[in-house]
Amino acid sequence: MKKLITNGTIVTATDQYEADLLIENGIITAIGYQLNTPVDEVIDAKGAYIFPGGIDPHTHLDMPFGGTVTSDDFETGTIAAAYGGTTTIIDFCLTNKGEPLQTAIQTWHDKSKQKAVIDYGFHLMISEVNERVLQEIPQVIEDGITSFKVFMAYKNVFQADDETLFRTLVTAKEHGALVMVHAENGDVIDYLVKEALKNEQTDPIYHALTRPPEVEGEATSRAAHLTGLANSQLYVVHVSCAEAVEKIAAARQKGYQVWGETCPQYLVLDQSYLEKPNFEGAKYVWSPPLREKWNQDVLWNALKNGQLQTLGSDQCSFNFKGQKDLGREDFTKIPNGGPIIEDRFSLFFSEGVKKGRISLNQFVDIVSTRIAKLFGLFPQKGTIAVGSDADLVIFDPEKERIISADTHHMNVDYSAFEGMKITGEPISVLSRGEFVIRDKQFVGQPGAGQFLKRKRFRNTVTEVEGSVNMKN
Amino acid sequence: MKKLITNGTIVTATDQYEADLLIENGIITAIGYQLNTPVDEVIDAKGAYIFPGGIDPHTHLDMPFGGTVTSDDFETGTIAAAYGGTTTIIDFCLTNKGEPLQTAIQTWHDKSKQKAVIDYGFHLMISEVNERVLQEIPQVIEDGITSFKVFMAYKNVFQADDETLFRTLVTAKEHGALVMVHAENGDVIDYLVKEALKNEQTDPIYHALTRPPEVEGEATSRAAHLTGLANSQLYVVHVSCAEAVEKIAAARQKGYQVWGETCPQYLVLDQSYLEKPNFEGAKYVWSPPLREKWNQDVLWNALKNGQLQTLGSDQCSFNFKGQKDLGREDFTKIPNGGPIIEDRFSLFFSEGVKKGRISLNQFVDIVSTRIAKLFGLFPQKGTIAVGSDADLVIFDPEKERIISADTHHMNVDYSAFEGMKITGEPISVLSRGEFVIRDKQFVGQPGAGQFLKRKRFRNTVTEVEGSVNMKN
Amino acid sequence: MKKLITNGTIVTATDQYEADLLIENGIITAIGYQLNTPVDEVIDAKGAYIFPGGIDPHTHLDMPFGGTVTSDDFETGTIAAAYGGTTTIIDFCLTNKGEPLQTAIQTWHDKSKQKAVIDYGFHLMISEVNERVLQEIPQVIEDGITSFKVFMAYKNVFQADDETLFRTLVTAKEHGALVMVHAENGDVIDYLVKEALKNEQTDPIYHALTRPPEVEGEATSRAAHLTGLANSQLYVVHVSCAEAVEKIAAARQKGYQVWGETCPQYLVLDQSYLEKPNFEGAKYVWSPPLREKWNQDVLWNALKNGQLQTLGSDQCSFNFKGQKDLGREDFTKIPNGGPIIEDRFSLFFSEGVKKGRISLNQFVDIVSTRIAKLFGLFPQKGTIAVGSDADLVIFDPEKERIISADTHHMNVDYSAFEGMKITGEPISVLSRGEFVIRDKQFVGQPGAGQFLKRKRFRNTVTEVEGSVNMKN
Amino acid sequence: MKKLITNGTIVTATDQYEADLLIENGIITAIGYQLNTPVDEVIDAKGAYIFPGGIDPHTHLDMPFGGTVTSDDFETGTIAAAYGGTTTIIDFCLTNKGEPLQTAIQTWHDKSKQKAVIDYGFHLMISEVNERVLQEIPQVIEDGITSFKVFMAYKNVFQADDETLFRTLVTAKEHGALVMVHAENGDVIDYLVKEALKNEQTDPIYHALTRPPEVEGEATSRAAHLTGLANSQLYVVHVSCAEAVEKIAAARQKGYQVWGETCPQYLVLDQSYLEKPNFEGAKYVWSPPLREKWNQDVLWNALKNGQLQTLGSDQCSFNFKGQKDLGREDFTKIPNGGPIIEDRFSLFFSEGVKKGRISLNQFVDIVSTRIAKLFGLFPQKGTIAVGSDADLVIFDPEKERIISADTHHMNVDYSAFEGMKITGEPISVLSRGEFVIRDKQFVGQPGAGQFLKRKRFRNTVTEVEGSVNMKN
Repeated sequence: MKKLITNGTIVTATDQYEADLLIENGIITAIGYQLNTPVDEVIDAKGAYIFPGGIDPHTHLDMPFGGTVTSDDFETGTIAAAYGGTTTIIDFCLTNKGEPLQTAIQTWHDKSKQKAVIDYGFHLMISEVNERVLQEIPQVIEDGITSFKVFMAYKNVFQADDETLFRTLVTAKEHGALVMVHAENGDVIDYLVKEALKNEQTDPIYHALTRPPEVEGEATSRAAHLTGLANSQLYVVHVSCAEAVEKIAAARQKGYQVWGETCPQYLVLDQSYLEKPNFEGAKYVWSPPLREKWNQDVLWNALKNGQLQTLGSDQCSFNFKGQKDLGREDFTKIPNGGPIIEDRFSLFFSEGVKKGRISLNQFVDIVSTRIAKLFGLFPQKGTIAVGSDADLVIFDPEKERIISADTHHMNVDYSAFEGMKITGEPISVLSRGEFVIRDKQFVGQPGAGQFLKRKRFRNTVTEVEGSVNMKN
Repeated sequence: MKKLITNGTIVTATDQYEADLLIENGIITAIGYQLNTPVDEVIDAKGAYIFPGGIDPHTHLDMPFGGTVTSDDFETGTIAAAYGGTTTIIDFCLTNKGEPLQTAIQTWHDKSKQKAVIDYGFHLMISEVNERVLQEIPQVIEDGITSFKVFMAYKNVFQADDETLFRTLVTAKEHGALVMVHAENGDVIDYLVKEALKNEQTDPIYHALTRPPEVEGEATSRAAHLTGLANSQLYVVHVSCAEAVEKIAAARQKGYQVWGETCPQYLVLDQSYLEKPNFEGAKYVWSPPLREKWNQDVLWNALKNGQLQTLGSDQCSFNFKGQKDLGREDFTKIPNGGPIIEDRFSLFFSEGVKKGRISLNQFVDIVSTRIAKLFGLFPQKGTIAVGSDADLVIFDPEKERIISADTHHMNVDYSAFEGMKITGEPISVLSRGEFVIRDKQFVGQPGAGQFLKRKRFRNTVTEVEGSVNMKN
Repeated sequence: MKKLITNGTIVTATDQYEADLLIENGIITAIGYQLNTPVDEVIDAKGAYIFPGGIDPHTHLDMPFGGTVTSDDFETGTIAAAYGGTTTIIDFCLTNKGEPLQTAIQTWHDKSKQKAVIDYGFHLMISEVNERVLQEIPQVIEDGITSFKVFMAYKNVFQADDETLFRTLVTAKEHGALVMVHAENGDVIDYLVKEALKNEQTDPIYHALTRPPEVEGEATSRAAHLTGLANSQLYVVHVSCAEAVEKIAAARQKGYQVWGETCPQYLVLDQSYLEKPNFEGAKYVWSPPLREKWNQDVLWNALKNGQLQTLGSDQCSFNFKGQKDLGREDFTKIPNGGPIIEDRFSLFFSEGVKKGRISLNQFVDIVSTRIAKLFGLFPQKGTIAVGSDADLVIFDPEKERIISADTHHMNVDYSAFEGMKITGEPISVLSRGEFVIRDKQFVGQPGAGQFLKRKRFRNTVTEVEGSVNMKN
Repeated sequence: MKKLITNGTIVTATDQYEADLLIENGIITAIGYQLNTPVDEVIDAKGAYIFPGGIDPHTHLDMPFGGTVTSDDFETGTIAAAYGGTTTIIDFCLTNKGEPLQTAIQTWHDKSKQKAVIDYGFHLMISEVNERVLQEIPQVIEDGITSFKVFMAYKNVFQADDETLFRTLVTAKEHGALVMVHAENGDVIDYLVKEALKNEQTDPIYHALTRPPEVEGEATSRAAHLTGLANSQLYVVHVSCAEAVEKIAAARQKGYQVWGETCPQYLVLDQSYLEKPNFEGAKYVWSPPLREKWNQDVLWNALKNGQLQTLGSDQCSFNFKGQKDLGREDFTKIPNGGPIIEDRFSLFFSEGVKKGRISLNQFVDIVSTRIAKLFGLFPQKGTIAVGSDADLVIFDPEKERIISADTHHMNVDYSAFEGMKITGEPISVLSRGEFVIRDKQFVGQPGAGQFLKRKRFRNTVTEVEGSVNMKN
């Protein structure tokens, strides 16, 4: 089965050029001018960019949280992702203290296997580090789950203490895994939340006010110090504010191996959204919370000038009716998170590239390539090169459209970006050479997505190199 | 004329993969598996890396300095560059106050046109900014000289005052050029030098002691502030020390468009070399001077973690006998600079990639791709992609050799890296599809190198994007 | 002649206590409870603070500037100072290039000798450093002028180049003097001003817009670097903004001997004042200019937490009518400066102590003691201690009043603080034991003020120690 | 009972002058020239400095630790303190979880009441914050214990979690107390210690290697962030390294109310002492540990330029034989701490003032005045002023002597500074006007020292102001 995509402009984290692209058995086998090969199908991409498929390193599909479950599962979530230009996700596998890690992993396989329409991997949440866990970890990594997440917040729920974080860092270094951290000081938040409730401060805005930037800055600093000390590697998820960016930049200058991810919501929304009337603020409840608007410039610059490296969605959707409104009387009962998996790619193109904040190559690097490298997926995923999977997005850079819950494909009753006008849209999306989206219509198959056994983190160098030998 | 390179591992700033590479009329036209095209020549690159040719953004060939002239001209210099894996250089065109810029440029064309064996461009030194100069600049840029160098040191010789620097920044922003700066405070150096001579401190080590790191840090800070204020773009050449790195990092965090270049000498040599007996210290006289050894770690980390972006050679060769020894009685008479054009590429591979300090992709980015982007040569130069010039290095990553003046090809009687053992060597080097070096032998032609009309700096984004349409 | 002040609360930079204070022949000879000594006069200070007289380290009296002369001379200026609680000033003696320093100093003695009602010293402006100047300097210092000012701004007028600044720093270190610097990059300002005028931007606000904070931050950084390199000592006058505070703080952390002064105008006024209609903005033209309001918090904190150390007035008064209005058509013709000498002390008490931003002891330290120590006047001036001059302010901390040109004593037709309500007022002021102000009336004598031969700067320690032996 | 001290040079944090000093009933009642009052006794202080008595804010007397008890109790400890020039100590009162605070306080009163020869106060350790503790705190403060200590280290022993620290900060702000913090990350230390023991790394040097500077820097940063967030006040005890100084400086620049204390051991000893043979390294086991020598310059500069403010001893003595040697086989069993209470004052004078690192006034400020102000003892203690307690040190600044366990007065069998030559020695020491040391002999009385009910922290200003009205 051979496909030829012609007339498009191929864009990678480094390059941009017009050429034809040949796909054989799901793999890119040639790129060039006038590739005179008999093919089964020719796809004309005139006027379009051809991007490597987006990789979303931060999703929560079918995840229980606070007595409810995220509204998108691996089917609706990955379909929406594909519509948006994302061809790979890495989802967080939750663990329970005392339970074998393999049990949790099996649960996640069960959630995803029959449903995913694109390829996917798992990060493993670490809630405790004891002898049993240490014994299980080598096999987990061997099985391709090569990144671990530690929560410094959510006291009495997910929160790990510093010893757990440090031991995770030491273990990750030893076995070749990347540690991810949710960096907010849960102890302080817990206190501030109790005080707020005591004072009958129950509206959504208090979600933000009880998690001030210092709480994120402090935890980011702490995690970075511990990483430097362990000579390990750290990936800070969902960086929301200047306080945290400063800490990451300082750590990198000291030579620590620390990377930071931000999310679209922090780049275009701000704390004032939490004050929307009629409980609408609940739609904008993320942790960390949306920040004062001036932080947006800091985040954009950090992506442009290299203090932050990647963009995740932190997809974690809850319906406004029936889920978000659990917190009408008490902001702490509002499920945290929102639906972004579909918008991450296009919104970032529109606000970043189209508005001149980042270059086209940086766009690809930040939404795909760097993520693939950090998380052991490269070069199978994350680039357009001979030998790589034909995970491709044929993208019309001039198409204008308006984001709306009426038209999006996520299984959720609102959009955090409702009414926002953006420029640029995926026309067709291929996963390993097969159309998942074709001319803006879903044509994929639940279950077609494959679990990705990811490679180990290579911690002697900043950017993980791939070694390629895909001919044989 | 078609060539096919087979079996090699192609490496770009992003990718690494095995594939065949087809060259037609000097241009890369296809990359893929088993490209079944009739060709004139097949080159087997088994076991080798295929890199885009190195770009040296910082050379001084055939340059008058302090009453003498650099010992390498555009012939010996570019031949040595090619041996070392460099296929493009950008040389500094000196100007004289009061003289039309075109006169200086013509002088540089005269020096290079019949001699260069690889492609080359020019940076233009700015010694004054007045109405005449301002009138000439648009044409200079139109002619493809799109970067200007300002010296903050060399009082009463090259040194420009802050108004000149600021006006250059403003003008560069307006017309789309990149400003380069030699950042050392010449006023302070001038004073310290006079004091040293007054105290009969004439040995080479006083070259370093009269140009302490604070002098570089200060000037770097000043140039960065002025750049931010002008909302312009700055490239700091030959960054040598932690003091300067800190200033560049701080500027970038503030969102200023500032980039920094370091050189191999600062990465592997240190200030103690200036104390070598028998006036051997003179071989290590660069400005800025070599620094205390601990700065090397800071520089390597800055390249790895993104505070610095490129590597130049600052090639500026003078024979030890007959030139360097002009300063036997007085270190200020030692011509500044050394021969590096040939070693930049391999030495950086050996010390950087082989020792695990940077990744293979970072290597390519730092010695080639980023330079091409910053200086308006991309995507013609700086990458391996369909449509780009076939400037290629076929590189044996395992070959060990010892650097020596006995075997190098520069026209100079010593090597600053004499006796240093390195791993990795260019086997063959192509410029626009033609061999310049073949199996370690020079097979090129003086005059075959072409002058490169570079594109304007695109200052809305960090990384300059190229647009390619080379089919027609 | 003996005086006894009873019932007051004595306040120094360290202490606060109720006690009687005995003055003999202008010197404080005893402090204690019930000092049973026969005296000529008893002054009841019940309910009042007794402060050491304020020291204003930064005044420009009778100074020519841009074709006009400041409206306050040493008589009106020092009378106003005394009304305000200041008993010592240090005025800037301007020099002219090519002219012997002694000529300039004599001119300043001529201006002050018959007029000053309080004691005074001189700083010497350094416009050039050559062999002649270097030969004169030891005698200047011997004569008690132990601080030198260098301007980094006012191109082609006062501006010195970096070599002059550096040589001044080296010379100051050698001979025991303190270097003061006006830190703004004059080259950049000169360019921005020309551009503004070219664009017909002539209103007072353009004064601020052509001297942005980066220009001050850069020059502050430069001066600090040069000071560290020279291992000398630096006093940065009139720090106006966060950019400059950061640079001073960084220098101090590195161990450089750098101190910073701010002024009342930067603490309570802001850039928006320059936009007042009817050319009223001209009243607020200082260099550096007033800044955006948020800088005020940074400056207050810097005084409180030790990044800045002193408060000067930068007294430099020009009438609105007849002087400031020289610049109606062109902001560059507005004489820079304003009348503050009378308000510095009380306004700082009211805004600082009364509003809880600094402590009472810090108030004394910042307006008097630290200045005396830095400038070689301690312990003769700057404290209330046995053996010190009886320069005292009897101060009612609860008195409210409104600042107004109608009631102030400066010879100028407006007040920059017109209508501002402040709390705290000097009731009586003594200079060497004699009343200058008594019950809010001037009772002093022009010519009674004495020139102060100041001691050398002691540069091995941060704070200059005095050695006292005044009994004999 | 009246005493007159004549001919001495009185030195305070601000002043230095020769004068007579009159003491009545333990209070300073007059300072002046020729105070012609009939007195009971005249003390000639010719050639001596008269300092306010030193205040040691950090002692552990009669304290149980790791199964043993510090070798100095309130009798030997305060006698040694007095010999050394210290007239006030503030000792740490340990609490036990679950036990009423008053029980702990009573225990400390029992330890001290009959034994102390100089005045003393208590800090209260906070090991938990719950409703019971919160209810007790107002009375504790009312009783004059106005500072609380929180440990971030000593996991499973003293270590408090972040919620406890934060609640303590909030409570301290509410009631007017100062929070003190031992800033080391106990979780990480605990892990590193276990690893070391697992690897049979049992020598004293591993005490230092398992508590690296990052661990102190991290905790300092965390405590500072929490303080800023709570808008509270923090005093970081025993700062040992550059990493921690940077964090305190950064916090202060942000306007946080954070102060830092260092100790003599960190100023003059270094990590290499822990490697002394024959287990002698155990004598140098402090927490935080001694650091690499270059940190000393950073600490000295921080005291000089204001990033650190005070000097404590962290007196915590254990005999080498019988106590320190509990850890011969396992460094974790070495009791932490050393004997310094006697040397703090003179050693700091010798190394600080005599070597030109700080001024004489800074000396007084750092060893006495600032401590009195921060801890609510001023102006009763900490200065020489009318109305203050006559706690005085008559000090010979030229006397040279050698520190030795043979001659010191602490109840411990070694000196950490054995053989060190210092200049300057207390001759006589008075507490509330009574000699405790007279001509280098102890003449005091156990039980003569009084418990000091300290005032509340005044948190609107940096430096606590005293209000004095001691006449009535």
